[in-house]
Amino acid sequence: MRRDYILIVQCPDRRGIVAAVSSFLSQKHANIVEASQFMDEAAGQFYMRARFSLDGHLPTITELENGFCEIGECFSMRWEFHDLAIKPRVLIAVSKIPHCLTDLLGRWRAGLLPIEIPAVISNHEDMRAFVEWHNIPYYCLPVTAATKTGQEDTFARLVDDLDIDLVVLARYMQVLSSRLCARLAGKCINIHHSFLPSFKGAGPYSQAHKRGVKLIGATAHYVTMDLDEGPIIEQDVQRVTHAHTPADLVRIGRDVESVVLARALTWHVERRVVLNGDKTVVFP
Amino acid sequence: MRRDYILIVQCPDRRGIVAAVSSFLSQKHANIVEASQFMDEAAGQFYMRARFSLDGHLPTITELENGFCEIGECFSMRWEFHDLAIKPRVLIAVSKIPHCLTDLLGRWRAGLLPIEIPAVISNHEDMRAFVEWHNIPYYCLPVTAATKTGQEDTFARLVDDLDIDLVVLARYMQVLSSRLCARLAGKCINIHHSFLPSFKGAGPYSQAHKRGVKLIGATAHYVTMDLDEGPIIEQDVQRVTHAHTPADLVRIGRDVESVVLARALTWHVERRVVLNGDKTVVFP
Amino acid sequence: MRRDYILIVQCPDRRGIVAAVSSFLSQKHANIVEASQFMDEAAGQFYMRARFSLDGHLPTITELENGFCEIGECFSMRWEFHDLAIKPRVLIAVSKIPHCLTDLLGRWRAGLLPIEIPAVISNHEDMRAFVEWHNIPYYCLPVTAATKTGQEDTFARLVDDLDIDLVVLARYMQVLSSRLCARLAGKCINIHHSFLPSFKGAGPYSQAHKRGVKLIGATAHYVTMDLDEGPIIEQDVQRVTHAHTPADLVRIGRDVESVVLARALTWHVERRVVLNGDKTVVFP
Amino acid sequence: MRRDYILIVQCPDRRGIVAAVSSFLSQKHANIVEASQFMDEAAGQFYMRARFSLDGHLPTITELENGFCEIGECFSMRWEFHDLAIKPRVLIAVSKIPHCLTDLLGRWRAGLLPIEIPAVISNHEDMRAFVEWHNIPYYCLPVTAATKTGQEDTFARLVDDLDIDLVVLARYMQVLSSRLCARLAGKCINIHHSFLPSFKGAGPYSQAHKRGVKLIGATAHYVTMDLDEGPIIEQDVQRVTHAHTPADLVRIGRDVESVVLARALTWHVERRVVLNGDKTVVFP
Repeated sequence: MRRDYILIVQCPDRRGIVAAVSSFLSQKHANIVEASQFMDEAAGQFYMRARFSLDGHLPTITELENGFCEIGECFSMRWEFHDLAIKPRVLIAVSKIPHCLTDLLGRWRAGLLPIEIPAVISNHEDMRAFVEWHNIPYYCLPVTAATKTGQEDTFARLVDDLDIDLVVLARYMQVLSSRLCARLAGKCINIHHSFLPSFKGAGPYSQAHKRGVKLIGATAHYVTMDLDEGPIIEQDVQRVTHAHTPADLVRIGRDVESVVLARALTWHVERRVVLNGDKTVVFP
Repeated sequence: MRRDYILIVQCPDRRGIVAAVSSFLSQKHANIVEASQFMDEAAGQFYMRARFSLDGHLPTITELENGFCEIGECFSMRWEFHDLAIKPRVLIAVSKIPHCLTDLLGRWRAGLLPIEIPAVISNHEDMRAFVEWHNIPYYCLPVTAATKTGQEDTFARLVDDLDIDLVVLARYMQVLSSRLCARLAGKCINIHHSFLPSFKGAGPYSQAHKRGVKLIGATAHYVTMDLDEGPIIEQDVQRVTHAHTPADLVRIGRDVESVVLARALTWHVERRVVLNGDKTVVFP
Repeated sequence: MRRDYILIVQCPDRRGIVAAVSSFLSQKHANIVEASQFMDEAAGQFYMRARFSLDGHLPTITELENGFCEIGECFSMRWEFHDLAIKPRVLIAVSKIPHCLTDLLGRWRAGLLPIEIPAVISNHEDMRAFVEWHNIPYYCLPVTAATKTGQEDTFARLVDDLDIDLVVLARYMQVLSSRLCARLAGKCINIHHSFLPSFKGAGPYSQAHKRGVKLIGATAHYVTMDLDEGPIIEQDVQRVTHAHTPADLVRIGRDVESVVLARALTWHVERRVVLNGDKTVVFP
Repeated sequence: MRRDYILIVQCPDRRGIVAAVSSFLSQKHANIVEASQFMDEAAGQFYMRARFSLDGHLPTITELENGFCEIGECFSMRWEFHDLAIKPRVLIAVSKIPHCLTDLLGRWRAGLLPIEIPAVISNHEDMRAFVEWHNIPYYCLPVTAATKTGQEDTFARLVDDLDIDLVVLARYMQVLSSRLCARLAGKCINIHHSFLPSFKGAGPYSQAHKRGVKLIGATAHYVTMDLDEGPIIEQDVQRVTHAHTPADLVRIGRDVESVVLARALTWHVERRVVLNGDKTVVFP
């Protein structure tokens, strides 16, 4: 009957926050299983994440959030409670390049990604058979310059209709309009195939080859209206040499892309990632 | 007038620990700057590290430790307070291979290692000029099978006389006797030039070459009576190929050894490392 | 009409080998696209790999090998020619844990693994649907202590009947008998889920957790009669902390296992890997 | 009486190059110890590096270069021979930040860097005592906007007078004028404390902190007139988190800087690095 919850708290720094929060949890008979905090000294902002378990009577998220009001307001906090038994509903978008999608579905099938996947959308038909084999609905929404607005409306309507909590752009090779970016703010993760801020925009592996870098990378970030400028969640790199062609970089890079996106998504659904302006706090 | 302190707490897990500890600190008008905790669910043990600052009246460590008695005993805790303004006194031991010593002294001179170095000891004269140039006393304690007991007595006496908090074996190519190991329990860090538990004992790079591994490593660990079996603090690796000779491995490995030892020492003096049986907790 | 070939040469070191080999290729109007060599000075052995292209009249492998006889015998060489247009036939063996198989099939489907996969075998039914979805025949060969010999006979017969060039144990959780190991010598790659020689045998992640290592790894190696002692092709590691449970290590390790096995297999089929006693030469 | 040499060759790709070069070496009774080649298919350029040994009568570099003329001209090559017994003369430039200099001198003292260091120059006095302790002359050349031209003239004159083969900017915090860059073309290595092309120019760690990257890096490159745009020799990275301040990044980054610069310098003096337009070929 034990159930695990996450509490995320953010507020201006001052004395007594941890004491207040942990006393609240203690009064609720919660057992704190993990906790970490971060004090952004330059910004004077305090961030805390606690994972706690309850047994016996299990309150709703609304009850928890209401009960926390007094402390939260006293410290001018923003706070969220999450019930880890409720899996976030994730919409995955893909174009033709399969590896990130394949990797995510592999983890999901293996029970390693605690999410629901109500649908995969794509601007191409290529991945339909693979996705449907997993019993996941596949929506093909082709897009041209002329139909982009309408296509994005359909995209957005799916997000609503399917009650989506998070959109993952798993090598979805379309730049979202500002309007859609704004609508998905904080709820859309993209994988960019470079070590940002190097090689923004199109063809990052060609750019990397041209510059002669000795490592290539991938970056998972929240999507914002500024292309490839959103808050970074995770990055990693892989060594390359002068002998690698742009095609080799594409091949080598796919493993980094898959792993970086999977880590970012996992941390997001474990509620380890909190926005701090243009940056993220990623609780260990 | 602000001063920073560390509190380390370890006890059987139960509800209310964080609330009790943070309320204590809050009552002392302490500001918690960093905190993290670890719950070893298998062992039922809870570990916590908090860095907090005080201003105005500054209590002594003894006052803090006494004040904490009531909570500590109530939860069956082991607890320690450390004043970060008091630098640990570290004795470095070296033989002929200089790179770990050179690296540590470079960091220390650059103000990056908050320690005192009352002395360097060695079983050889080789590093005397370099050490003395840093205005650090150098004790040469040659050792043979016949003189080992006496040499270790002198070693131990220096630890006492110089009021040493930590001994760092920075490529000190002598196996300490069980007696000396026991005496320095939890207070002696060694750097072993392999990725333990691979290649214990002598000549790890030759062993690694013979086995044809594709990565070589280094391990910093607390010294215990079981050679190369002590609790691991930090490890890292470096890629090698079939084309590298044992001499190449020695050359490549020196960078990993230096960095791994420096990280372990830094974390130890920042009081991030806590023993958990044969293992360590290293607080982020 | 251009076609690419690999030449692998191994012989006692002496003057003039490269000149003789490259003159031979030059006379055949071959264009050397890649070449590298390795001189094991301790063993006095010379290894060379050249990738060359031909156009116009394309000789057979037998013609190339016969034509090379004179030089080869003059230098006491062992030599092999491979036609890169002929894809090796690879049999993949798996038990229940899917990630290495999933990863290999993903690469293969994406055109990144130039191999044929005539069959997947397993001692369980779990992966049948996934494999058959790829239009690859799936043979389930259950095994118990009592039936092991017969099961291995069936395994070996499949290797013969399907004209298999290489067997890949992609988390096939069975120890092969010495007889089968001998039969597959140099033609069977295993992925072991530890950084060998640490944590041989069963439960390497539990062993790693117990020892408190700070990095976990994976090792791809040729299978020999000595369990987990075969020549290492590739290894890699991933950082872990005290907070990771054995189950976390399993989850984190799967990515390293997949990538290490994929690299080893790729290098094998690109004919970059040559046995050098108990070790490998892996040509860059 | 054995002596080792390096031959570097670069030419338009065509058949028979390796055969011609290796036959030449074979006729000279040279033993090829290492060799590798690279074919830039896009550019149609071929690069080769061979390390060979001679014994008995040892020719001069001029004799070797002259003897090679016929082949070299026949294939429109650029070629260089180097005698590994002749150590390059390296001038190190530093400002106040010591770690790269300290690291290089440590390697040099340990016999791991086969170079002469005729002098260290700096625009500050800070490192004089440390450098002079190594019996290396120290030239302090202070610089202001007003005196920059004169200071660079003195710098250039030292390069001439001391017969310098290579200048290493080991955290020399001055931007060289275009005139001096041109003069030192291909003979000057800089370490930049970011993963280029990210964070060019001043304050890369502040820029990295502001962007919230999860890895920081360092880049060793040849100096050209375009600031931080020169051909990259080596790069590496180190993981950081949201909790690291800009000062932490500086501290963490110093290890990457030291190692990356040391690798680049080592490869340069081993003649592994060849310019390929705006990029480098780094022979393994």
